[in-house]
Amino acid sequence: MPVALLTDFGTRDHYVGAMKGVILGINRKAVIVDITHEIEPHDIGSAAFVLRACYREFPPATVFCCVVDPGVGSERRAIIISTNRQFFVGPDNGLFSFLYGNNCEITSIENDRFFRKPVSSTFHGRDIFAPAAAHLSLGVPPNEFGPQITDPITLSNIVPTRLDEKTLAGAVIHIDHFGNIVTNIAATAAGRKFELDIAGRTLTDTREQYAGAPANQLFAIIGSAGLIEISINGGSAAQILKVKTGAAVIVRIS
Amino acid sequence: MPVALLTDFGTRDHYVGAMKGVILGINRKAVIVDITHEIEPHDIGSAAFVLRACYREFPPATVFCCVVDPGVGSERRAIIISTNRQFFVGPDNGLFSFLYGNNCEITSIENDRFFRKPVSSTFHGRDIFAPAAAHLSLGVPPNEFGPQITDPITLSNIVPTRLDEKTLAGAVIHIDHFGNIVTNIAATAAGRKFELDIAGRTLTDTREQYAGAPANQLFAIIGSAGLIEISINGGSAAQILKVKTGAAVIVRIS
Amino acid sequence: MPVALLTDFGTRDHYVGAMKGVILGINRKAVIVDITHEIEPHDIGSAAFVLRACYREFPPATVFCCVVDPGVGSERRAIIISTNRQFFVGPDNGLFSFLYGNNCEITSIENDRFFRKPVSSTFHGRDIFAPAAAHLSLGVPPNEFGPQITDPITLSNIVPTRLDEKTLAGAVIHIDHFGNIVTNIAATAAGRKFELDIAGRTLTDTREQYAGAPANQLFAIIGSAGLIEISINGGSAAQILKVKTGAAVIVRIS
Repeated sequence: MPVALLTDFGTRDHYVGAMKGVILGINRKAVIVDITHEIEPHDIGSAAFVLRACYREFPPATVFCCVVDPGVGSERRAIIISTNRQFFVGPDNGLFSFLYGNNCEITSIENDRFFRKPVSSTFHGRDIFAPAAAHLSLGVPPNEFGPQITDPITLSNIVPTRLDEKTLAGAVIHIDHFGNIVTNIAATAAGRKFELDIAGRTLTDTREQYAGAPANQLFAIIGSAGLIEISINGGSAAQILKVKTGAAVIVRIS
Repeated sequence: MPVALLTDFGTRDHYVGAMKGVILGINRKAVIVDITHEIEPHDIGSAAFVLRACYREFPPATVFCCVVDPGVGSERRAIIISTNRQFFVGPDNGLFSFLYGNNCEITSIENDRFFRKPVSSTFHGRDIFAPAAAHLSLGVPPNEFGPQITDPITLSNIVPTRLDEKTLAGAVIHIDHFGNIVTNIAATAAGRKFELDIAGRTLTDTREQYAGAPANQLFAIIGSAGLIEISINGGSAAQILKVKTGAAVIVRIS
Repeated sequence: MPVALLTDFGTRDHYVGAMKGVILGINRKAVIVDITHEIEPHDIGSAAFVLRACYREFPPATVFCCVVDPGVGSERRAIIISTNRQFFVGPDNGLFSFLYGNNCEITSIENDRFFRKPVSSTFHGRDIFAPAAAHLSLGVPPNEFGPQITDPITLSNIVPTRLDEKTLAGAVIHIDHFGNIVTNIAATAAGRKFELDIAGRTLTDTREQYAGAPANQLFAIIGSAGLIEISINGGSAAQILKVKTGAAVIVRIS
């Protein structure tokens, strides 16, 4: 069964190796898949975007083990989200917010029978989340890990605010490897004709593909995740606009 | 069956995870292998070098899914190259040039039965190449994907030009992680005694191994891919020479 | 059987792909696991730390293939360490020092029946270490690779020096992705109350978790590997202290 990993641990330390070792130690047949370990440290919103943009591609019964966890060692809960297709394991800090509108069950991980011991106060990825993911991949049902909960933490910037019929106020939720700026505004909400304000500029050029865009000119495009992105051919839009995650974006539908 | 991935997508976004999810969704038993996702964005020549330097090590029937694709969304074709040992999937932009001299068949991927839908105009890695690779790994024969073609795009700098009997004009095709400068000039073409011009300097020191070279002195060496490289002990030759891919290299055989 | 890889090869070249291809070419059922390829080039001590911090999590019979090898091509030996649980393959340069106190056998890899040929003088990861790891994962016993040896190279900074009953002189052995500074001083040696000198500063704040620490204030913490680390909330301790691996650390037990 695939166990897919998404963390902000980077790839230069023992953190990812320790999680993989724990998973294989519990389920020798687990198929471990790296989604990414390069989430900007502690950027829960960016992690939520990356997960949201790829989880549907994975087969049924995939277990996603997602650890971007600035609150490790505090009282924040460890949770399992079970949808009718897949499982998600990680801290209760909003990372899985985009799943909560749908039909899903949320379990608080409390049964220490499934923990690696001793449980450290700095590395729950190894001691709590990886073991839970491995046991789920073996078929242990979520209700053996602890009680159901109904009050998970939810991120505020999952969707934009509708200011009026034609205006959406959103935010940058991710900067990608190519410097493309990803917003939280869905193409389905904005349609194909709109103006976009970001970082003091107004963009009116909206395109369907990178190829063919003039050099050195910013444009808006529907990205592969179905969200509005800001791009430039042969450069980094994020560098040019000096934009980070959290920056405001306004879309005016034409 | 191994499905080996080589892209310029980086590892911080959803791109690689989405491709892996698609592959496992089609062939749950695929053994996904990361070659690299750190090709310099849009550097087709560098991608061709990395693939050329390792594909022979992989077992028969390996499917290589290679996506360095500045022309995504344009009219460039998607292709499968079938050698008598392995399969290669990716854009028709020269990435696979080094295979074309040998006995191989090239198929244009056109049968949308094998596409993930809807097909985006920005992410054919997920929508066309990954599904094709996964179906090949299940045993679907190449001719089910579309017609054979005989006019693939070929890179011009795959091999050096012979200026006269003793002089080869080549180019830098890759800079590696250690700062070693890889040229397109094969050791078999140059022999073991030669002078090399690069970036306004002439190198006469040719070596067989890194160990033993004096510090701070550039030298030429036959790299593990069988090509002439320029190195320096304890430093980055590329930084010292300020050289990038595409730079000219002259070899004068002694 | 898991074959876990730890190298300083980076992930942008053909090096890692070639090793994976060789392993799958010999043992198609090998389960290849990336621990890291981002060890600082030639930093044997850092590699030893990362391996030490995660190998126990992996299941029995795991083969670790570890290549941080500044002496490639010289007379340094290639070795296999067999513990009563697992196998370790790599250069004899101290990388496995932390294993030698325990009950283990060390084999010099000399039988060229197990080499990929021709053996290059620059890439033993592909030509010697990966093939040895793959054959071990198939069940070939270590004594078929060559004679046992008893004089492996040992790193000097594996453990701190005890200056007196209450004072330990140690060193920085790793800087992690978050900028945490890892020392070679075990929590079990220092206890929970101590002062620590590093880079001209004395730290008296010792904590059990990151959460709750005041911003912009360095503190000591027992890291997940059981070693004393220096951290700061919301920043990089290594950047603030301008510390590198090898830097001196003094711990005075209260």
